[in-house]
Amino acid sequence: MTDRKAILVIGAGDATGGAIARRFAREGYIACVTRRHADKLAPLLEAIRADGGEAHGFGSDARKEEEMVGLVERIEREIAPIEVAVFNIGANVRFGITDTTARVYYKVWEMACFGGFLMGREVAKAMLPRGRGTIIFTGATASLRGRDGFAAFAGAKHALRALAQSMARELGPQGIHVAHPIVDGAIDTEFIRSNFPERYALKERDGIVDPDSIAEAYWMLHRQPRNAWTHELDLRPWLESW
Amino acid sequence: MTDRKAILVIGAGDATGGAIARRFAREGYIACVTRRHADKLAPLLEAIRADGGEAHGFGSDARKEEEMVGLVERIEREIAPIEVAVFNIGANVRFGITDTTARVYYKVWEMACFGGFLMGREVAKAMLPRGRGTIIFTGATASLRGRDGFAAFAGAKHALRALAQSMARELGPQGIHVAHPIVDGAIDTEFIRSNFPERYALKERDGIVDPDSIAEAYWMLHRQPRNAWTHELDLRPWLESW
Amino acid sequence: MTDRKAILVIGAGDATGGAIARRFAREGYIACVTRRHADKLAPLLEAIRADGGEAHGFGSDARKEEEMVGLVERIEREIAPIEVAVFNIGANVRFGITDTTARVYYKVWEMACFGGFLMGREVAKAMLPRGRGTIIFTGATASLRGRDGFAAFAGAKHALRALAQSMARELGPQGIHVAHPIVDGAIDTEFIRSNFPERYALKERDGIVDPDSIAEAYWMLHRQPRNAWTHELDLRPWLESW
Amino acid sequence: MTDRKAILVIGAGDATGGAIARRFAREGYIACVTRRHADKLAPLLEAIRADGGEAHGFGSDARKEEEMVGLVERIEREIAPIEVAVFNIGANVRFGITDTTARVYYKVWEMACFGGFLMGREVAKAMLPRGRGTIIFTGATASLRGRDGFAAFAGAKHALRALAQSMARELGPQGIHVAHPIVDGAIDTEFIRSNFPERYALKERDGIVDPDSIAEAYWMLHRQPRNAWTHELDLRPWLESW
Repeated sequence: MTDRKAILVIGAGDATGGAIARRFAREGYIACVTRRHADKLAPLLEAIRADGGEAHGFGSDARKEEEMVGLVERIEREIAPIEVAVFNIGANVRFGITDTTARVYYKVWEMACFGGFLMGREVAKAMLPRGRGTIIFTGATASLRGRDGFAAFAGAKHALRALAQSMARELGPQGIHVAHPIVDGAIDTEFIRSNFPERYALKERDGIVDPDSIAEAYWMLHRQPRNAWTHELDLRPWLESW
Repeated sequence: MTDRKAILVIGAGDATGGAIARRFAREGYIACVTRRHADKLAPLLEAIRADGGEAHGFGSDARKEEEMVGLVERIEREIAPIEVAVFNIGANVRFGITDTTARVYYKVWEMACFGGFLMGREVAKAMLPRGRGTIIFTGATASLRGRDGFAAFAGAKHALRALAQSMARELGPQGIHVAHPIVDGAIDTEFIRSNFPERYALKERDGIVDPDSIAEAYWMLHRQPRNAWTHELDLRPWLESW
Repeated sequence: MTDRKAILVIGAGDATGGAIARRFAREGYIACVTRRHADKLAPLLEAIRADGGEAHGFGSDARKEEEMVGLVERIEREIAPIEVAVFNIGANVRFGITDTTARVYYKVWEMACFGGFLMGREVAKAMLPRGRGTIIFTGATASLRGRDGFAAFAGAKHALRALAQSMARELGPQGIHVAHPIVDGAIDTEFIRSNFPERYALKERDGIVDPDSIAEAYWMLHRQPRNAWTHELDLRPWLESW
Repeated sequence: MTDRKAILVIGAGDATGGAIARRFAREGYIACVTRRHADKLAPLLEAIRADGGEAHGFGSDARKEEEMVGLVERIEREIAPIEVAVFNIGANVRFGITDTTARVYYKVWEMACFGGFLMGREVAKAMLPRGRGTIIFTGATASLRGRDGFAAFAGAKHALRALAQSMARELGPQGIHVAHPIVDGAIDTEFIRSNFPERYALKERDGIVDPDSIAEAYWMLHRQPRNAWTHELDLRPWLESW
């Protein structure tokens, strides 16, 4: 089993997580992908396998400590060492401050940040004895600044960035590459297609981000030699104003 | 009751919260101060009253929605309109990532960020119809960057900063001044005296922050005319390296 | 002459420099103000004197080393120790990158940054033996980010910020307070009135910055005790979107 | 000549510029490299040619407008369209503020920033009609913050970053990818070997940046599809504390 190595993608329910899993599977990584309901992962698993890759799907709630602990243990024990772990859960909601319920504020943090903490900590425990590994947390514009209506979402993303940065500073000198790419722009997803059709129309002109481009950047990050690691980089369509 | 106006200080258990309450009380603001156990507020209340001010103490858990809702309602109804609200609860802990329990990670966020959200939202509701008011969230170095051992604390402080910035952008044009001062350096508190005696020794040379200086900065922020509001400023002892 | 102390304002040709000089003069500081042509300073000098203050005007080109060296020497020798120095020269121009001549790019840097370096260095030399003093460089939105058309101006302002930060870190522990306030918004000046009338119309609603507010902030910075110095703060009208 | 395309590297006198030129030459780009004295480029040109690439060396002073204008014109006319341009001149000096001569302050800016402006503007003129191209400005830690002794160097690097950001925002939507990678750490150069031997000793453990890693990152930036461009990324050895 020495050559076998896994990538864990937490939050493979959207186009981005799926593209990342496929990209690494193509390079021989065993794709271990999660979303809350395992059955919805079938098309992704099939696509990876059709491409000659190995894939395992897990129904898993990233906010539950025991589930994350169990998931990492199981993959490490039964499948392969986790060489790469990607936290890819967002929770983009918009509410004015007085309309933000305590429940929403908490849930957004729990999904978009707390789950990242649990994944990051558990894979760090597995990677540290090996002295290597890559951990990537997907960031967004809201990781860098707050905005009218984004108290909850920007709060969670800011906290996730602080997690990534704290982990990078602690774990980097122990051989673990922690990165925090920031996607600044709409991604080509069903969500954007349904909710922001005008935005989606920019796709023809490459005006929204292709999930495969994100996957390529993540692959690049993982391949960087340790003499020149990137912690943070932005990914933005050429037409995006910023 | 038209001229009466209150300042609410959430987290008046340390030297900073107390200094802020005293500073505003000296200007005629009715100091409404909270900490988890009301009885410990007695010395502060006495000090304010001895100084000729009016003060009310509340035992209140900032993490409980119903308590924060009730607190703001009660002050507005029974005491005076809240003109100024300060969120001053920290939760500075340091743990390596693999030693950070889910409980610690959650508690730090709950205390240092979620309570701020609850306070901010509730006082915003009260202030918006009046079209004025000042809301201040106390920041720290960890608000700006993560660091080895600070995943939990930096996460909470980053999220609080995102809250402050989102609220400032939303509420500023509605007349509410939201500010996020960043204290970068040790404060003259019992905690520093006990735990960092070498640091505390710098006090003789003004090398640690005097809570009264913080209070003065907060008073200044509240007094700024609306044509030139400050959202963020740093406060740092001259000897601090940064 | 022991109690006499001067404030030097480089670039007192606009409303902001004048307001700062008047503010400090009211507190007993001898206002030493410069602009390229001394005769245009007459109204400002008269206003300060009418207010009971002492003022001296100098025609001085901030980009010329020998002039800046001579100016600081002369004030120190003939008038009073410089306790406060403010660099207030901007050079806000907007050109697309291919329309930016080498001359413009150089001139903007020379005025808005190089002059600040000369002033900063010369007053630092005078202040260091005394172990105290305040040096303030006026920043702008362009100090923080580049923007279409602002390669020259943002370049100069970024460089000025780097100067302020480098000096603060070096000179702070030697007793000299170096600050870099950032004015984010239009200021109530003749320039804005003539060129941006719609913007200027916001004045009625406090939507543009009053130079006196800037002056008040600078006075506050100078008065801060050294246990809690501010290096950077923003000043922004309540209506400004950011 | 339709398939021929050139990369222009301004400042190919150090290991980094050379590595970038070699990397792109290997992919078929005609390497046009400059340094002040052309004769010193011979080893680099030979290395590229030995590798099967095409290379042209130019003795050129990046601070002289007429030289930069002529250089770009000549390459475009006689060699090939410039598809990629890299500005790679640094000027890392360290002086306390009172020991920084006006000459040093100016020279550092002229070399590390003004030359970048000239290159950037001239290649933008050539690229705009084609609606594509990549322009990269090499950044450093000093691009992000000032520091004791770095007023001149940080000033130049901050200004260069403002240039890169302003150009990216203006030229991105016109098809030109402007990037600003930030190298945070010592690079494996003769300068580091001679002046910081302890630092250099970290090379054995990958503790200093390999110029080839920088070159790889630049190649990656140039290859990004326009739906996901990176403007800024950091490159840092795993052992570097930050």
